[in-house]
Amino acid sequence: MKIILVGASGTIGQAVERELAERHQVIRVGRSSGDYQVDIRDTASIRQLFQAIGKFDALVAATGSVHFGALAEMQAEQFAVGLNDKLMGQVNLLLIGREFINDGGSFTFTSGVLSDDPIVAGTSASMVNGALNSFVKAAAIELPRGLRVNIVSPTVLVEAMDSYGPFFRGFKPVPAVDVALAYAKSVEGKQTGQIYTVG
Amino acid sequence: MKIILVGASGTIGQAVERELAERHQVIRVGRSSGDYQVDIRDTASIRQLFQAIGKFDALVAATGSVHFGALAEMQAEQFAVGLNDKLMGQVNLLLIGREFINDGGSFTFTSGVLSDDPIVAGTSASMVNGALNSFVKAAAIELPRGLRVNIVSPTVLVEAMDSYGPFFRGFKPVPAVDVALAYAKSVEGKQTGQIYTVG
Repeated sequence: MKIILVGASGTIGQAVERELAERHQVIRVGRSSGDYQVDIRDTASIRQLFQAIGKFDALVAATGSVHFGALAEMQAEQFAVGLNDKLMGQVNLLLIGREFINDGGSFTFTSGVLSDDPIVAGTSASMVNGALNSFVKAAAIELPRGLRVNIVSPTVLVEAMDSYGPFFRGFKPVPAVDVALAYAKSVEGKQTGQIYTVG
Repeated sequence: MKIILVGASGTIGQAVERELAERHQVIRVGRSSGDYQVDIRDTASIRQLFQAIGKFDALVAATGSVHFGALAEMQAEQFAVGLNDKLMGQVNLLLIGREFINDGGSFTFTSGVLSDDPIVAGTSASMVNGALNSFVKAAAIELPRGLRVNIVSPTVLVEAMDSYGPFFRGFKPVPAVDVALAYAKSVEGKQTGQIYTVG
């Protein structure tokens, strides 16, 4: 398969590449690194990406920013960051990418544990992850041509505990290599509309 | 209690008013009807509403539009309708309303069954409802002064089956009077961070 991996330089992205590159052609995409660059906040940039790559069989998005901060200090502007980036960035990869994907192809997105298990300073992440999970369930029943869409919802990563540990006390972290398996299940399996929770 | 009811003229809003007005002062708010008017897509309009009403004890939002349409015909613009209206409209009622609400007060929002049980043409509704449910869980753990936030997630209404029935085949509708009870539980109880599913 020809697989587009958006967010290839991240901790999850690197683990997904190691998992999938053994068996598939993986095209690495990042905001400023990789084989191709894209700004997922910009639909024109997304369209240019797909035009440059051409037909493909699967897209994995392990990317997307949100604003982390105390709710007391957040207004609509801070929530807009995550809505425009992690939420609509991934959704637009599907809305535009569907024009370029081969029959039976798949999209695999990334949400996270905070949709259901919130932490202080994580209201925007919770909102965006909940939106993505529900979007995937709904989009799956309308995609044509055997196209599929799933989402991986990992808990905090072992590799991120040095920086995120204080925010995730009591969460049992998982190694990125385990999270990567869920992306392989989505890409190489045949399920659709699934939320693969890891951790 | 002094309760602000946004969306008072809707099917749910009318039932909520009947339920709460027996015991409380209910201030009816609508886009073009009611005691006060607000455009929830506009933060300036929301701020004017709260400045006009002053201190209050509870806010119920039974309002918010999304675009219903085939996913095949939707792009980012159609998803923006629901993100700006039903999602951020309700969220902004909290972000701004928290400046005006009395200690121990509550916000009660409205999502809907499509977050978990999708229908064709409902991808935006699913996205927005999922976002709202997760936002409420997260916001509840950060609100100060004993403030609370819950959300009511109803299935399709008996009263809406004439128009929405073809989209909700197989769903068992509930009467608005039953849905209204969940708002009373949120406003007059003491729980927070809850998703009250009805139906």
